[in-house]
Amino acid sequence: MEELAARVLASERRAVARAVTVVENGLPGADALADRLYPHTGRAWRIGVTGPPGAGKSTLVDRLVAHFRMDGRTVGVVAVDPSSPFTGGAVLGDRVRLEGHAADAGVFVRSLAARGALGGLATAAEGAADVLDAAGFDVVLVETVGVGQSEVDVASAADTVVVVLVPESGDAVQAMKAGLMEIADVFVVNKADHPEANLLVRALRQALELRAHDPAAWAVPVVKTSAARGEGVEALVEALEAHRAHLAPRWDRLREERLRRRVRALVERGWRQAFWTGAREAALGEALAAADGKGRTPHRLAAGLLAGAVREASGA
Amino acid sequence: MEELAARVLASERRAVARAVTVVENGLPGADALADRLYPHTGRAWRIGVTGPPGAGKSTLVDRLVAHFRMDGRTVGVVAVDPSSPFTGGAVLGDRVRLEGHAADAGVFVRSLAARGALGGLATAAEGAADVLDAAGFDVVLVETVGVGQSEVDVASAADTVVVVLVPESGDAVQAMKAGLMEIADVFVVNKADHPEANLLVRALRQALELRAHDPAAWAVPVVKTSAARGEGVEALVEALEAHRAHLAPRWDRLREERLRRRVRALVERGWRQAFWTGAREAALGEALAAADGKGRTPHRLAAGLLAGAVREASGA
Repeated sequence: MEELAARVLASERRAVARAVTVVENGLPGADALADRLYPHTGRAWRIGVTGPPGAGKSTLVDRLVAHFRMDGRTVGVVAVDPSSPFTGGAVLGDRVRLEGHAADAGVFVRSLAARGALGGLATAAEGAADVLDAAGFDVVLVETVGVGQSEVDVASAADTVVVVLVPESGDAVQAMKAGLMEIADVFVVNKADHPEANLLVRALRQALELRAHDPAAWAVPVVKTSAARGEGVEALVEALEAHRAHLAPRWDRLREERLRRRVRALVERGWRQAFWTGAREAALGEALAAADGKGRTPHRLAAGLLAGAVREASGA
Repeated sequence: MEELAARVLASERRAVARAVTVVENGLPGADALADRLYPHTGRAWRIGVTGPPGAGKSTLVDRLVAHFRMDGRTVGVVAVDPSSPFTGGAVLGDRVRLEGHAADAGVFVRSLAARGALGGLATAAEGAADVLDAAGFDVVLVETVGVGQSEVDVASAADTVVVVLVPESGDAVQAMKAGLMEIADVFVVNKADHPEANLLVRALRQALELRAHDPAAWAVPVVKTSAARGEGVEALVEALEAHRAHLAPRWDRLREERLRRRVRALVERGWRQAFWTGAREAALGEALAAADGKGRTPHRLAAGLLAGAVREASGA
């Protein structure tokens, strides 16, 4: 792991790929590797891109990659969108775009399986982003579909969160329902040539105005793009850069909060695993077998199992 | 709560609505209410309906409701699909269908917010299904979008899981990626009039054959429907009934496993909450403030916080 870490820090492509696999799947040594790389993270700008399926997130990510590359910045992409061409979802489609970057050493793309990630999707995605950060990528784009609870959480852990919508029925309402309204730092109305694009832009701006905010807070911009034609991408990048500049004075605090969140999640995972000793597994089986009538209910059984354990544990 | 429970058991509509709200949001008395209702659950047939957005799940659910009603069975619907008309996603669309059932006392529809559910989406959905089960609904349909990790988990907790696909590019591949292949008891190829419907049916059947299975196992059927036109719904119901008959001999064991899963989830939630005593919150803050260099890494900090607590707790 020591050697692998050194090779990641030297930005060796194959080592980066291997390290992401190790971290994503919790292979032996994953924790040590993550800790070894951690002090070298915090430099990359993490941009989350989320929104409903079919909003054109992948095309937009592709455009952003191209734009940042022209700018001389290296880019890592972590894609957890099952409908993304990066994850192979669109088997029939736009793999060409991805292949356009395949020969570019300044771009690294990694897809994560949306299910079965050890310790949850958010942990896997953050671990992968950390590896890319430590490997020196200037920008790490995290693309997820904005539908699932876990998926939205993944994007919202980024420094700058882009929510992509398209002018189709009820989109803004759905965004509010899915909690996308709260996490957006920048809204993109993609497919801006659609006749109802301006309606959506207005609806979003009105919804944003309704939220009480103090003048010092970040004013969420709404940017129109046509990712397929490459239009509006520069305006989007400007909006992203403005948000980054807004974050700059609190960059250290943001890193601190991210570390705190990570530690909390790890502690909770370890704590959960510590509960299920052989004795407690057996106690669960016995309780289920013994209980009947009123005692045979979920909360009562759980309370019985917990009571003793918590009493001892909180003696700390 | 005692009175509310009695009114739920008497199938009083307003009490059912109130009880779902209490359980979903973990309002005071929620646990007692759930426990009071629990012994009266286990009678309803829980059918999960999931699949990608736009597959026509809601239309299909609507058709199933109508079919079961004609059959004289009462139906509860729990919808956690943000794109479902039941949850108000499609504001411009098909609310009419829902309203078709509004006057029918034998149908109860409840949408759950996909985000912010206390204790997670799966807990909220299962709690809501329990209320409907205790209130005497014969069938409880749980509709979720098959995209998010949590959302797929919700559907897969049902007795019978229906995965709905449409003959569009890469759908079968995406289903496999999203883990839908593993949870399906019945596959529906909706929009069966699409020219590529038969291709998808064949691809699914081939994929299903590839899975090693013993002859006693359930053979997952693939049913073609056109929910919009109401075609194929009877064949679907036959397939569902066949699966129910297949489950019958193990119905009690399934209930037992569900209870065990519930208790485990509740224990883990309680255990997690028990960790964060004031002292441990303070310790986290101190550890973050004190650590530097190599010690300032997520796993090392977490391990430090956990070590003492686990040592005490596993003295049990």
